[in-house]
Amino acid sequence: MAVTPHPVVPIADPQGRERLQRWLDGPHVEARDLVREWLSEPGHAPRPDLEMEEHRTQVLAWAKELAAAGGTGLGFPAEYGGGGDVGASVAAFETLAMGDLSLLVKCGVQFGLWGGAVLHLGTERHHRAYLADTVTMKLPGCFAMTETGHGSNVQQLETTAVYDPDTDEWVITTPTDSARKEWIGNAARDGQVAAVFAQLETQGEGHGVHAFVVPIRDTEGNVLPGVRIEDCGQKLGLDGVDNGLIWFDAVRVPRDALLDRYAKVDDRGVYSSPIENPNKRFFTMVGTLIQGRVSVCGAAINATKVAQVIAVRHAETRRQFGPPGREEVVLMEYRTHQRRLLPGIAKSYALHAAQEGMVAELDAIFSGEDASERHRRELETKAAGMKAIATEHATRVIQECREACGGAGYLRANRFAALKSDTDVFTTFEGDNTVLLQLAAKNLLTDYKIHFGDLDPLGLAGFFVGQAWETVAEKSAVREILGRLADDLLPGRDEEGDLLDRGTQLDLLRWRADHIMSGAARRMKGGMDNGTDPFEVLVDCQDHLVMVGRSHVDHLLAKAFSDRIETIEDPALRGVLDKLCSLYALSVIEAERGWYQEHGRLSSTRSKATIKAVNTLCGELRPHAALLTEAYGVPETAFGDAHRVTQPADAA
Amino acid sequence: MAVTPHPVVPIADPQGRERLQRWLDGPHVEARDLVREWLSEPGHAPRPDLEMEEHRTQVLAWAKELAAAGGTGLGFPAEYGGGGDVGASVAAFETLAMGDLSLLVKCGVQFGLWGGAVLHLGTERHHRAYLADTVTMKLPGCFAMTETGHGSNVQQLETTAVYDPDTDEWVITTPTDSARKEWIGNAARDGQVAAVFAQLETQGEGHGVHAFVVPIRDTEGNVLPGVRIEDCGQKLGLDGVDNGLIWFDAVRVPRDALLDRYAKVDDRGVYSSPIENPNKRFFTMVGTLIQGRVSVCGAAINATKVAQVIAVRHAETRRQFGPPGREEVVLMEYRTHQRRLLPGIAKSYALHAAQEGMVAELDAIFSGEDASERHRRELETKAAGMKAIATEHATRVIQECREACGGAGYLRANRFAALKSDTDVFTTFEGDNTVLLQLAAKNLLTDYKIHFGDLDPLGLAGFFVGQAWETVAEKSAVREILGRLADDLLPGRDEEGDLLDRGTQLDLLRWRADHIMSGAARRMKGGMDNGTDPFEVLVDCQDHLVMVGRSHVDHLLAKAFSDRIETIEDPALRGVLDKLCSLYALSVIEAERGWYQEHGRLSSTRSKATIKAVNTLCGELRPHAALLTEAYGVPETAFGDAHRVTQPADAA
Repeated sequence: MAVTPHPVVPIADPQGRERLQRWLDGPHVEARDLVREWLSEPGHAPRPDLEMEEHRTQVLAWAKELAAAGGTGLGFPAEYGGGGDVGASVAAFETLAMGDLSLLVKCGVQFGLWGGAVLHLGTERHHRAYLADTVTMKLPGCFAMTETGHGSNVQQLETTAVYDPDTDEWVITTPTDSARKEWIGNAARDGQVAAVFAQLETQGEGHGVHAFVVPIRDTEGNVLPGVRIEDCGQKLGLDGVDNGLIWFDAVRVPRDALLDRYAKVDDRGVYSSPIENPNKRFFTMVGTLIQGRVSVCGAAINATKVAQVIAVRHAETRRQFGPPGREEVVLMEYRTHQRRLLPGIAKSYALHAAQEGMVAELDAIFSGEDASERHRRELETKAAGMKAIATEHATRVIQECREACGGAGYLRANRFAALKSDTDVFTTFEGDNTVLLQLAAKNLLTDYKIHFGDLDPLGLAGFFVGQAWETVAEKSAVREILGRLADDLLPGRDEEGDLLDRGTQLDLLRWRADHIMSGAARRMKGGMDNGTDPFEVLVDCQDHLVMVGRSHVDHLLAKAFSDRIETIEDPALRGVLDKLCSLYALSVIEAERGWYQEHGRLSSTRSKATIKAVNTLCGELRPHAALLTEAYGVPETAFGDAHRVTQPADAA
Repeated sequence: MAVTPHPVVPIADPQGRERLQRWLDGPHVEARDLVREWLSEPGHAPRPDLEMEEHRTQVLAWAKELAAAGGTGLGFPAEYGGGGDVGASVAAFETLAMGDLSLLVKCGVQFGLWGGAVLHLGTERHHRAYLADTVTMKLPGCFAMTETGHGSNVQQLETTAVYDPDTDEWVITTPTDSARKEWIGNAARDGQVAAVFAQLETQGEGHGVHAFVVPIRDTEGNVLPGVRIEDCGQKLGLDGVDNGLIWFDAVRVPRDALLDRYAKVDDRGVYSSPIENPNKRFFTMVGTLIQGRVSVCGAAINATKVAQVIAVRHAETRRQFGPPGREEVVLMEYRTHQRRLLPGIAKSYALHAAQEGMVAELDAIFSGEDASERHRRELETKAAGMKAIATEHATRVIQECREACGGAGYLRANRFAALKSDTDVFTTFEGDNTVLLQLAAKNLLTDYKIHFGDLDPLGLAGFFVGQAWETVAEKSAVREILGRLADDLLPGRDEEGDLLDRGTQLDLLRWRADHIMSGAARRMKGGMDNGTDPFEVLVDCQDHLVMVGRSHVDHLLAKAFSDRIETIEDPALRGVLDKLCSLYALSVIEAERGWYQEHGRLSSTRSKATIKAVNTLCGELRPHAALLTEAYGVPETAFGDAHRVTQPADAA
């Protein structure tokens, strides 16, 4: 650890740190500790010195070692060597994000994407054929979905899989260069097999995108006939992952290469599916892959924590300026520095709490405990929104932490280089963030729509006028909040104290989410009533839709954090976390106070009071900054092989 | 250029682009073109494939070639092989930021920092001894200011230079490890000499920080006795620059090694200086180095432009989603995408205009045309504030552009990797941004203070109560604006049209800057009147002081852009730039609309109207996005040696 080798500011109560860490670790503490221990073993620390090919070799070796240690198969059925515990598998994956992020992504490709496609889209014969070797990493696999011409718009991809009844085979073809598979992890070097997403055609008819198992290399590593692979080469980060491009030239695979849980083709080529609507079928298939999005969300949260530990350790030791004639002051004493670091820590806690809840829901759904379609869609909405916000948080906070460490943050050895460049792609892979926030918004609006029936042509909105708005208000308790609006104007309400009340904070956040959602719906409805082209209406409302997704997550995080605090018994820790939760909520309200005033929800006086309250909370939480970040339980090895311990400098 | 090799969206009037580029290039078009041509020559394009040592070798070779081509000496006197044109030298440096940024920083170290120290802190004998070889890069030099223990707080650095009258020499010593010189460019490999900043001591008395010329290597590259150098090693970026650590063990240099423009020591060791006050002397010496800060500001602006060209070319060609059954739509058609790119382009133009003004002021001051102390301080304020805002802009916008290019932005070949990692350090070198914004605030408050006399103990504020506030209001035309406040509440004022009025925009921005500044002053005064420790008061007001700096620059940019538009004759271009200036101003007001409502300056209705106006302007400017960015005149070679032209993808 380059900034300081050990935390130098003693935490008043070391047992408090332990208790806080256990509380953060939650139900899957064994999985987290297994990965922490593995990361702490000699030779498992991130190595900033490796060149691309060495790095790839190292990452493959690490993945095999981790698999042997039981760290990668937790989510697979026990009969194939797995642990049968989806929640634990996500917790293990999240923890891996505290180490080398190329290893994380390699594991995500192998066990999440490739293994997940076989598990969720395949049936028993696919499980028997592939899962055991997948769990041990003996069979490295690819997830060949993305094409050059189509990133986010998967439904439009162009690779074809045509059934040939004469030979009882599928013929997989890349018809144009824009249909080549791109960014495929495990493809450039290690992959022997791929789950290839292609337009299924049989009997002259197309049935949309389906997944097929296609061998791409023999066990010696030779690329198979008809398959062409190119290396994506050096990237901005994650160079330990062998991303590649793949083309298929009429590659033939047997009929049972179709991962056929949701669609079968018989030997005459007759297509059948339990889901008749092709659109619904596509989204059901894609929906089973939600674990990837949930996992990236958790990984982003944990990578952010690594940066926060480094920045707080630095801020507690680095002295700059101070009162004339006296010792210089540690950075953490400065309000500007507290403002840079503490609201970000509060948001990491809120994200962590919400992530834990989301993983529990994922676990319930995939264990079969809870398979209702409503809960699946709620999970999809949450995963889309939270993945966007958590990865944006990672990008912003890691940058802020780097800058808060001055020159020292710019040393390669200090981990910020890797944290920045490796997490950067999180914002655009597993769904581009801007697209995901709109997906979340679409789901939320659709839920309202379903509540009232199918009324509009775009499948998005259409009933939000007059009385409907009242009903929404009813449903979401807006009425009650509206009733409180007048109170705001009374003297005595504009007190800081009120803003520190959790109920007030949650009301403010929920009210904003509801109001923005119904406003977006009315705006879309209004546009369509005008006779405007629905696509134009959608584009015109896009910024509003992004706000729908964002404000929904803002509230969701505060609620999850607040609920999670209820489970902590230690009154001292609870006091600290209560303040931290208030800091999260009020930071959001402070950032959005323009909106709150526009909508009559905050008076100008109370709006100013949010700024003061955030300052006050930063000051009160400052003595706990080290406790809060050390409790993340980041292994010391995760801070890198710094070649020297340095006090950093700020200028060149 | 990896995204698309040429702009594919035709600009309606190619001559319009040419005219716009010339307008942007301004008075120093020859210097800019010289560097553009050099960057366009074979072998001068950035090379993402180089390892650190190869990269350093390449950068040194490039710097020598560029020096031979006349691209580096423009700011030095003609008698030493220079061009005698400070403005042109900054323009050339800025343009270099469109190429490899390690070369930029290497040149900054050699010609700006080392050469600038000799030129501005030395006297004629130093000029004769060093400048000619500096301009040709025959004598690579270092600027050894920063120490491990003291980055931003230069006045506290610990290296000592003690005069020994017996030998008529200075003894340069690194007393502790925290006093080692750190991050020194040119130190690890190439530097033969260094301008070393040290505490001058003579006759048993300290006189503060001064600069000394100290040889560190012989011409064979051997490190000289008493000097110890270590390599900083790999960094987050800029690996073509050989940053190093330097220790001095009682290294002796002759008395005339003191760069003695502002202080002399005679052979008996008697110290004399034309500036009696040691504090003022220090800041005068440091103040001569302002060109570095101005240059980094310009470099940040131009590096940002490279990213914007790539992102707009991508947005004009990449299609994703669209109306059912119709062709997919280019990204630039989406409001979310317009919102991501266009306000950033508007800000780049505003920064560019303000930078041009600042360079003209720098030129006037350093050519001796205008040497008033007031203008020097104004320039210092502007350089501090603008450097902070421009480098923050670079970090944010390059990231946004990377994400807006999806997966393609993540390829190493696409330049975002280098742009991101190389510009990252701009936020903390040449002055940490948070410190600089407070420096700007301090200067602004001091100017007010000077206006009214020295009244307070902290040297910052102290008179801002009652009548003084009225006087400030008078001075800054706040009174007039306050008079208009009531109008806001009248029906008919809440129209979008009004917001598009340049006068209204500038009034809003200026009013905010003035109001925040006087508020900060009153808050500090109030704290000190309470008897609170002045340092505590300062810390308590820090966030407010940062806002003083920020709001000052916000207004300054709008004013500069607006004034600069007055010089354009083509009515079509002027129409586009007028909208672009409105977009800049209204984007700031939109972002700060919470503040404007808190201070009664925007009604909720008008506040909402700013959002709508920004959307409308984005839509109106969208057809000109390619024109606006192609007119930056970024050489095609600056987009890198992409190994393939790719249509990007968004997901892995």
